[in-house]
Amino acid sequence: MSKQLNIGLFGFGVVGKGLYEVLRSTPALQSSIKKICIKNIDKPRSIAAENFTNNAGLLLDDESINVIVELTDDADAAFEIVRTALQNGKAVVSANKKMIAEHFEELFQLQQKHQVPFLYEASCCASMPIIRNLEEYYDNDLLHSFRGIINGSTNFILTKIFKEQLDFDKALLLAQQSGFAESNPALDVGGYDAANKLAILLAHSFGIVAKTDAFIFNGIENISLQDAIVAKSRNWRIKLVANAQKLKDGKLAAFVLPQFVDEGDDLYSVENEFNAVITESSFADKHFFKGKGAGAFPTASAVLSDISALRYDYKYEYKKIFHQTDTVLSDDFYLKVFVSVDDVSNIQKEAFEWIEEWHNKFKHSWLVGIIHAEKLAANNWWKHKGISLIVCPDAIVEDVEYRKISRRSLELAGVL
Amino acid sequence: MSKQLNIGLFGFGVVGKGLYEVLRSTPALQSSIKKICIKNIDKPRSIAAENFTNNAGLLLDDESINVIVELTDDADAAFEIVRTALQNGKAVVSANKKMIAEHFEELFQLQQKHQVPFLYEASCCASMPIIRNLEEYYDNDLLHSFRGIINGSTNFILTKIFKEQLDFDKALLLAQQSGFAESNPALDVGGYDAANKLAILLAHSFGIVAKTDAFIFNGIENISLQDAIVAKSRNWRIKLVANAQKLKDGKLAAFVLPQFVDEGDDLYSVENEFNAVITESSFADKHFFKGKGAGAFPTASAVLSDISALRYDYKYEYKKIFHQTDTVLSDDFYLKVFVSVDDVSNIQKEAFEWIEEWHNKFKHSWLVGIIHAEKLAANNWWKHKGISLIVCPDAIVEDVEYRKISRRSLELAGVL
Repeated sequence: MSKQLNIGLFGFGVVGKGLYEVLRSTPALQSSIKKICIKNIDKPRSIAAENFTNNAGLLLDDESINVIVELTDDADAAFEIVRTALQNGKAVVSANKKMIAEHFEELFQLQQKHQVPFLYEASCCASMPIIRNLEEYYDNDLLHSFRGIINGSTNFILTKIFKEQLDFDKALLLAQQSGFAESNPALDVGGYDAANKLAILLAHSFGIVAKTDAFIFNGIENISLQDAIVAKSRNWRIKLVANAQKLKDGKLAAFVLPQFVDEGDDLYSVENEFNAVITESSFADKHFFKGKGAGAFPTASAVLSDISALRYDYKYEYKKIFHQTDTVLSDDFYLKVFVSVDDVSNIQKEAFEWIEEWHNKFKHSWLVGIIHAEKLAANNWWKHKGISLIVCPDAIVEDVEYRKISRRSLELAGVL
Repeated sequence: MSKQLNIGLFGFGVVGKGLYEVLRSTPALQSSIKKICIKNIDKPRSIAAENFTNNAGLLLDDESINVIVELTDDADAAFEIVRTALQNGKAVVSANKKMIAEHFEELFQLQQKHQVPFLYEASCCASMPIIRNLEEYYDNDLLHSFRGIINGSTNFILTKIFKEQLDFDKALLLAQQSGFAESNPALDVGGYDAANKLAILLAHSFGIVAKTDAFIFNGIENISLQDAIVAKSRNWRIKLVANAQKLKDGKLAAFVLPQFVDEGDDLYSVENEFNAVITESSFADKHFFKGKGAGAFPTASAVLSDISALRYDYKYEYKKIFHQTDTVLSDDFYLKVFVSVDDVSNIQKEAFEWIEEWHNKFKHSWLVGIIHAEKLAANNWWKHKGISLIVCPDAIVEDVEYRKISRRSLELAGVL
């Protein structure tokens, strides 16, 4: 039933090395790495030089190689590799979320045209089989929402800031030293990595093929120690959370933003490099799934599970893309957010529907208010340095009318 | 790609009704129930009488029916239904853990012989796709262990006892009223249901086909309010936990027993009818998965996901059974257990390797000690009324030699 896999591997960073070790120690997989293509052929390596080449064609044109595993961190080069491999009829496994998110539409078309497997479980939440479960299990029109912590590096940093009172730079350095951060840390802390993953997950959960500019996202760079103190005073923690939720009109709200989570939230106790996803569906109700979302071996394990699935010719069916053609993204919803600023004049009060709390302190003013998502999407004032925006628990507010009275009362009180 | 499914349904209890509702509200599934076979044709039903028959042959011999969904609670009748259906080339979906656990070997052989899908995701942990993940994702020799709460009814009862101070009988009644308990509650509270599920999970996780008499199991009937007080004093909770763990010699320890869990354990905050499973593997490390483990809709959702998978002719590959032929069950390990008794003379002190704690109070004496699993398997003294045995956190002790000195010191102190 299962077949022998001859692998051409691109990239030999921490994940590539992890995979090499894993394959060596699990011969039952019937998979071996025939050749490894790397950029710098002169760099000293931990294994024999004969394993390496810097000539991509040696792998892509080798007919005895039936699987290309792409583990580089250059999104443009990676796309060329994957495209050529699919065109040459080779199955492809990739962990490159940036490349997949940026080229999803083209890759989907290529996969459909050539009908060879293209798997990328490792691109989202590392070790967790989240794509496979969204693809296979939450089928049909049953899924209402998912939300989760899908970037291990920022969660590691936030945990270190909260639990060990490290400052941001030290926590980031520690994340890099532990192998949890992207080679370009701006991808993690700026929220780009989580946004890329959300883009991929949207396709497999709701059939929405969208680039990251189609939804609101931000990272954790502007979160200050004072924000953490506010969170602690309410027994909350701050997490970078990706959200996708069906609205009453059947459209989908999607965003990646820092969020206050309370103790009753399953995400509250997700720490360090762990990732977690909560799904809600009509009949299965709530599922919570937690696993390591960064690191060489957890990522390699997901690559390995894809390789293993190739032995049985597993392909994503992209069921949601084919069956849920009517689900589209929408910015027509309200968010309850906390906004803090160094300088109170930077806050755009008029953008809010109403304001629930207003604290004006020396060098740290903050409010809690309701804002329409379109206003966040249209103007980036809240992404500027010295301003942090953190979504409150129960972030999405669909029905605002009944509370408009609050705004009026605040106006009368002279706050607005 | 996908095909039309015509379903013959056996059983119209809470899950059958749930499934009927679910199928009616998701036409995208291309699945419809053609006929429902029930025992009592005269009982008034919520849908039209023409849907029902009490003649099993009308479903099993109907060539237009290509899927049999078996949701009865009679294990013997269910086995006959499933056997005939598979022999007649019909795909089968079942939620009947008792039937599947008792006839696993025969059902596996039938499935192999007739090569028609036989799926039963709903038999373990209701809504959670645990069988599918064990089967598909934790492939090869990577899985070290799984442990979890796999019976929703007992977890519901334990939660009500702990959080709402209900007594056992009231909590059980509430579980039954909520539709979380088996029609025969002894199956739940005696641990039989969890044991049946563990037997099924062992096949899909480690390739071990074993009946429930091959491992130690017990339920929660003998747990007393005093045990709960001991747990609370140490900030522990009591959960009924199924365990499967590879030992150093490569063999597998497996059991279902009540366990004290501490706050650091992911199972600690799994409440009410929720189930949860923790897997540990070489590379993916730790995964935690939580979802509703009982109730009509959660169970129906798992049945539905199987039905949905049939549209793509999905079959279990039973990879572990074929590839892990060398993994066998073993009783050669030690457990750290808490044992409490009404009457101190009922405790078999001599069965223990050593005793760490000894509390002798009026009508509630208890000890914490290390006991060899063979001694628990060989003699049922600890299952008798008035005795409760609860496994401690970090239950399995493999290396006992270094602590034998404790026994000697207790002997010297006159405790033993």
